[in-house]
Order: sequence, then C-alpha cells, then structure tokens
Amino acid sequence: MKLTTLKDGSRDGQLAVVSRDLKTVCIASDIAPTLQRALDDWNFIAPQLDELYGRLNAGRAPNSVDFDASQCMAPLPRAFQWADGSSYVNHVELVRKARQAEMPESFWHDPLMYQGGSDDFLGPQDDIELGSDEWGVDFESEIAVIIGDVPAGVKVQHAGEYIRLLMLVNDVSLRNLIPAELAKGFGFFQSKPASTFSPVAVTPDELGDAWRDGKVHLPLRSTWNGNLVGQPNAGVDMVFSFPQLITHLCKTRNARAGTIVGSGTVSNKDTSKGYSCIAEKRALEMIATGEAITSFMKFGDTIKIEMLDKQGKSIFGAIDQSLVEITRR
Amino acid sequence: MKLTTLKDGSRDGQLAVVSRDLKTVCIASDIAPTLQRALDDWNFIAPQLDELYGRLNAGRAPNSVDFDASQCMAPLPRAFQWADGSSYVNHVELVRKARQAEMPESFWHDPLMYQGGSDDFLGPQDDIELGSDEWGVDFESEIAVIIGDVPAGVKVQHAGEYIRLLMLVNDVSLRNLIPAELAKGFGFFQSKPASTFSPVAVTPDELGDAWRDGKVHLPLRSTWNGNLVGQPNAGVDMVFSFPQLITHLCKTRNARAGTIVGSGTVSNKDTSKGYSCIAEKRALEMIATGEAITSFMKFGDTIKIEMLDKQGKSIFGAIDQSLVEITRR
Repeated sequence: MKLTTLKDGSRDGQLAVVSRDLKTVCIASDIAPTLQRALDDWNFIAPQLDELYGRLNAGRAPNSVDFDASQCMAPLPRAFQWADGSSYVNHVELVRKARQAEMPESFWHDPLMYQGGSDDFLGPQDDIELGSDEWGVDFESEIAVIIGDVPAGVKVQHAGEYIRLLMLVNDVSLRNLIPAELAKGFGFFQSKPASTFSPVAVTPDELGDAWRDGKVHLPLRSTWNGNLVGQPNAGVDMVFSFPQLITHLCKTRNARAGTIVGSGTVSNKDTSKGYSCIAEKRALEMIATGEAITSFMKFGDTIKIEMLDKQGKSIFGAIDQSLVEITRR
Repeated sequence: MKLTTLKDGSRDGQLAVVSRDLKTVCIASDIAPTLQRALDDWNFIAPQLDELYGRLNAGRAPNSVDFDASQCMAPLPRAFQWADGSSYVNHVELVRKARQAEMPESFWHDPLMYQGGSDDFLGPQDDIELGSDEWGVDFESEIAVIIGDVPAGVKVQHAGEYIRLLMLVNDVSLRNLIPAELAKGFGFFQSKPASTFSPVAVTPDELGDAWRDGKVHLPLRSTWNGNLVGQPNAGVDMVFSFPQLITHLCKTRNARAGTIVGSGTVSNKDTSKGYSCIAEKRALEMIATGEAITSFMKFGDTIKIEMLDKQGKSIFGAIDQSLVEITRR
C-alpha cells in the first residue's frame, strides 16, 4: 500500500492512503490519525489501512479526492530517529580519491552511518530554506526505510522483517561546512540541514520483484534545474543492504518504531549513469582534470528526485523543490 | 514547576506534576496527555500545569499520591532531537592529553556537538541493558535543557528564551568502541547506547539564582557503586552556555519543540571536585603515572546522579540505575 501525510496545520499532519497510480487519496484518520501512530501499533493498524487501500484502488473508497503532492508533508514530518548509512561505497571512494585521501579497506565491510536530525523534515515540494548558498549546498538522492521496533543485537537474517515502508530522500548537505565539522571528530551537525522525503511511503510489496536481497533494484532519477543528471540503479553497487544497515544500527541499542534508515547517496561504478549528488560530479572532474568545474546549488535552483517502475510509472511521487534564501518570519 | 512522565504501558507515558519537595504527584492528563503534547503548545498548556503545581504544593490537588521515582519514564521517553554538546572543554582537553593528542585551539570557541539517538530513552531507575561489559561502559553525568521551537539562525541573546525545562542525563558511552568509530569520521553511533534522564524536568525558575548566564551553578553529584566520585559545579568551567549551544545547533536549521540539548560531561579544572565520567579519572591517572588504573563499569555496577539545592534537597530526583547484561525477550 501507499501512505501519505497531508498538511492540516498540525505538527504531524493527517494520515491518508494514496491509490497505486497516485491519482486519488483518502483520509485514514478514523483508522489512525498519524503515520507514527500507525507504526506504533502496526500489526493492528496496517491491515485496516490495507483494506482501505484496496477499496481506493477499486474506486470504492468513500470521500476520496484527487491526490496533490503539494499538500504533502514528509510521511513522518518529525521522527524519533533518522540514521543514514553510506552503502554505496563507490561514492565514498570517489570523493576521497578526488582529495587524494586513501579510503580504509574496512569501509567495504563496516558500514558508515551517521545520526541525523529528525525533528523538522520537509515535505516533497517544500522549499529548501537556507541562510546562505555559499555553504556548498548539495542534494543527495537516497532510498530510506521506516522500521518497526527492533531489539538490540538483531541478526541480519531477521533484520529485514522489521522493514515497514520505503521512501525517497533528499539528504541535503552543506559541503563547504563538512571539512571543518568532520575535523572536529563528532560527525555532521550544521552541515546537515533538514532532509526532504517523497510524497508517499510504500510497503515493500509495492515494488514487486524490484525489492529483493534488501535492496531496491530500480534507477533513482535526479533532475537538477530540469536536466536529468543521474539515474543509477539503487540495486547495483549497494554494498550494505537495508538488513545489514539495521543490524549495524542495533548493535548496542534498540531501534523503536518509526526509525528511518537511509541508504546513503545512490551511486553506480558505471559513470554513464550520472550522479545523485554534485560532490560526486565534482570528484570525477577533479580526478579527470585536476579541477572541479560544476558549482554547487544556488538560490533559485530546483531539484527533482523520482523513481519509476518498469512501466515508467512513479512509485513514490516526486521530491520536487527549490533552494531559496530563508525569510525571517 | 516540576513535571514527570509516569509509566502506563504506553510509549510516551502519562504527564504528571510533581510537588517541589518531590513527595507527591498528580496526573495532568486532563491538561495534556504527554510532555511532548505540552511542549507542542507550551504557551497555552504551561500556565495550566503551573496552576496545578501551585495547588499540589499547597496540598490542595485532587487525587495526588506519593511520588515514586521507580514509576518514572524519562520526562520525554522518546524525543525528536537529542543534541549533546561538550561544553566543559577541560574534560576534552584532559582526555586528549592522556593520549598525547593536541586539542585544537578552536575547541575553546567553537562548540563540539553530536546528534544522539532519541527514540529509546531510559527512565531514571531503568537498568542499563547492554550486550557486553567489555565495551568500556562509562557513565557521563550531564545537564540538559528541553527547548521550544527555535528558528534557524537564532541569535545568542535570544536563544535562552526558548529554554522550557531542565533535566539531568546519564549519557552512557562505550569507550572501547569510540576510537574505531570516530576514526571513520561520521561521529558516534554504536558507541552511544540509550541515554537516561532524571525523574523530573523542572522549569528554570525552580533553580532560583543558581540559574544564571544560561548555566546551572550547583554541584552535580555522581555516586558510583555507593561512592561519591564527583561533585563538580556545573556553573564552573562551562565554556559554552546553553544559549550558545542552542545558537550552534540552529546555525543552519530550525529546532522544533521538544528538542533536548545536553551540556556534555560536567567537569571542573579543580580535580578535587572528582569526576563525572570514568574516562576523565583514567585520563588523570594516565597523565600522572602513565597508566590508567580504574576500570570501566562492570555488570552489576550502580550509578547515581543527583543535584541538590543549597538546602541539600534534591531538585530533579536521582538517576539511580544498574548496569545489567541484556536479556533476550
């Protein structure tokens, strides 16, 4: 099934079910008021949502209306955990190579993961509001899963069972703030402003056979200022599957329902597939010519992130947003 | 006023008001069901809670019962953000000195802050359940504030206005996992299991003149296995005040209501005040003798963290917990 969270002026929005073709939507608040509440009691709530989804797809849901992605918040407008991996190690290696830094061999078998801020996510068409475009503003196109309650020490063969929903993410990064911040040794903080999520979150079965081995085997399309700049396959070169990321996350602690786990920037070794973040393009330029030519995003730039199924139909709807200068309210 | 969250079998618990002397408690669920809900609409809800607090202190609250800290969850059992600073730079310098690493001069004017997991906090008397005590289990006694909605780019002179509540924290660290994790460059993750919070959260006015300059000017007492090992004054050697930490947090992004901001391990240059984490004790030993003698925590160890007012009365109640081996359920 496909779920969305509609803007209603509240902090957590209103849970709704979206038809498979993303054409119609039906409020689900008589089943659960918010997506977090549904995740808190998933085994009881999900079958009821799925029943409504069936009726909606059949054109028999009461009070359904046209779906409008501009009315969406992030599926979880605020979450209790956002843990972002870096599974496409190729991406890490490239960026390091560009600055002539060796990548430790351990990166191929020990996942990188950072704890992100999760109190203030953006909806798919919300502006990216920032104080400066001199900070090296970059998009990062990723896949993420929402999980249920996972006990500490979960084994990888069980970790996949906890995956409830999948989404797309734009994990915006401020590249010019990263070097000084990482040099301090405590990881990202100011260099990671609010992340953006796709209009809908979908259950794994919606992906059919494109969901296997804990990976999504479809291209992820990034369109920057109207130009398609990347379409790497998210199932290719993903060194750590989502179950492996969940196992890493839970080595010393539980993860509670509604935790979001990200894949990291999708990247293929086949450079003809383009890029899912500007830093990678710049790294390739640096390696080829000794100079990075492509600039980071400027105020007024747009970024669209979408995934199509084999029939060319959008699965999650599109993240489609502009970078704008923050306005004081 | 003093607020607590009582265990009721739910994920977020039940909001209640506690008397100033920590003797009685009164459910506040007719005002707001949970602390997060109160924070979401603080200007409307807080005066009602304060009115109930006044009646409770006067012995005129209906249905009040004896307060029992063992029935408490963390004031926010799960939060949308946990951002922990490292304001007692003396502590950072000591730990670095012990391993003969220079501390960058910038650490004195640019705060360290890491993003912590916030989906699964422990109540004040909950066991610290871990898979191994070979991980170098350490307590870290800290102060934290809960803030309201803070806009990105907030100026330091305004940041203090957003502080709603204060708490104590035990920010447990797994010291033996830290070096390898920080070497990867993405900050803490597995080395930071669930944090624990004090039984009650208090508004700043409860601290009287001990709350000034955005700092708490009282000793923080850490008692390990029944021995008082530290009582540094939290107002001394705190290089970055809470307003400064909030300003750092919000440089590039908003912080939303219910965000928790930590002080970092409280530490005084005056070593006669003892220590708020074992790593610091070990660092002093290393500097003095070339060898760290004191071991980290073992299963069965207890740690108690408390702050007393000038009359010797507990302000927040005590964090008082045991380290135990995780049991699979």
